[in-house]
Amino acid sequence: MNSAGSSPGAESPSGDEVSTAGAILIGDELLSGKIQDSNLYPLAGTLRRLGIRLLRVSIIGDNAAVIAREVKQFSADYDVVFTSGGVGPTHDDLTLEAVADAFGVSTHIDDVTRKMLEEHQGKQLTEAQIRMVRVPDSSRLVSTKDVPWPTVVMRNVWVLPGVPQAFAMKLSVIHHELKGSQCLLSSSVYLRDDELDLTEKLNQLVERHPQVSIGSYPRWFDTRYKTKITFDGEDAALLDAARDDLLSLVPAESVVNIE
Amino acid sequence: MNSAGSSPGAESPSGDEVSTAGAILIGDELLSGKIQDSNLYPLAGTLRRLGIRLLRVSIIGDNAAVIAREVKQFSADYDVVFTSGGVGPTHDDLTLEAVADAFGVSTHIDDVTRKMLEEHQGKQLTEAQIRMVRVPDSSRLVSTKDVPWPTVVMRNVWVLPGVPQAFAMKLSVIHHELKGSQCLLSSSVYLRDDELDLTEKLNQLVERHPQVSIGSYPRWFDTRYKTKITFDGEDAALLDAARDDLLSLVPAESVVNIE
Repeated sequence: MNSAGSSPGAESPSGDEVSTAGAILIGDELLSGKIQDSNLYPLAGTLRRLGIRLLRVSIIGDNAAVIAREVKQFSADYDVVFTSGGVGPTHDDLTLEAVADAFGVSTHIDDVTRKMLEEHQGKQLTEAQIRMVRVPDSSRLVSTKDVPWPTVVMRNVWVLPGVPQAFAMKLSVIHHELKGSQCLLSSSVYLRDDELDLTEKLNQLVERHPQVSIGSYPRWFDTRYKTKITFDGEDAALLDAARDDLLSLVPAESVVNIE
Repeated sequence: MNSAGSSPGAESPSGDEVSTAGAILIGDELLSGKIQDSNLYPLAGTLRRLGIRLLRVSIIGDNAAVIAREVKQFSADYDVVFTSGGVGPTHDDLTLEAVADAFGVSTHIDDVTRKMLEEHQGKQLTEAQIRMVRVPDSSRLVSTKDVPWPTVVMRNVWVLPGVPQAFAMKLSVIHHELKGSQCLLSSSVYLRDDELDLTEKLNQLVERHPQVSIGSYPRWFDTRYKTKITFDGEDAALLDAARDDLLSLVPAESVVNIE
């Protein structure tokens, strides 16, 4: 098991810093509408703060072949990949096996994790429960001081739990272990104008500020504002210039807030 | 424009009834963690109640080429596909063009929708705003009495808005227009037992009830129950048998609730 503070990006394509990410949320319950996912939002926020661009998310069911195919594809497409779900002890927990399959390796029982789990529950694991501590061959187990329960990392794939409270704990591990390569800055302007009436002005802005990513988000039934305009990029001066340009295009009384 | 009650599944691979679905949620704001998606959960629930299996969801950014590729793949893979987002009037609203690209067709201005929008805002659309009423050639526009604003349907792809309030309105159109081929039944048992202690029993259940899909969901920090066991399938008698079998395997005092 790697100790806290090890170099986690060593096996990622871009070396120590990672630039792009993909996420795979696993579970029949998400697709059947029984459970509302609550892991993506905090993951996306964590990655943005780290300077890692999340480029794609897949939500798929508890099917080992589908999970393996998805993991293989994502691992090739992005610097770092996160899975969520399917790591418990029961028959529908297929992620660790599927991740092994994705990389053409077998699994083995990790004795350290096994001992931790046995100490936790005060008795030996049964044959069926051992599923939970079977990890892909050549995977790394990452622990930190705050989150001693190991996180399985296979190449550039971080295998995270689906239970929201457990997932949230793992975000602190990600924050500790991964380093993004980008400085993702963002600012927003909240306007009283209807998005339809802003279209021409936004088109001007987009043309004049090609290095700033400009977003427009209408809001219904909100008495405070009607449209939120966002500016994203890596250069603070360029962001400020685009924002000031917008402010020069709309009447002062339209502006509700600037963040 | 098709009138309410038209036959929507006519162009879907399976005829009038649809069996499988995929969904594509579009928007940089979902991937950057600025906005928490709230459309998937009600969509998934609506589809389940209709008897349509949602098999995959992709969340992707505002990139026309990526959207087009995804739509093309999903359209081939599933009976019906739903997109959410990217249908407003601004530069980052790319979905309608991308859906046209996916099927190798052009777009045209739909005069009926244009007139509706002009009446709504009390003035003519500008050249830039017309983006909003450009629809793929040979797409259908579906209206219902309750939701007169047309929904664009291209082959088996339903193009829905991203704004949650607008999306929710469209779910009533889907409910009105689509008919699932399956009867998806579900029941749940809430137990005080830790999931780890249920593993062996669940493995027995899974083996004895191959036609029932059995799920196990641990719950942390909940004083009411520790594990929820779900039973899903198309046959009520088989579901009941699996549930009763579980109830015979656990002590009565473990059972918190049966749904």
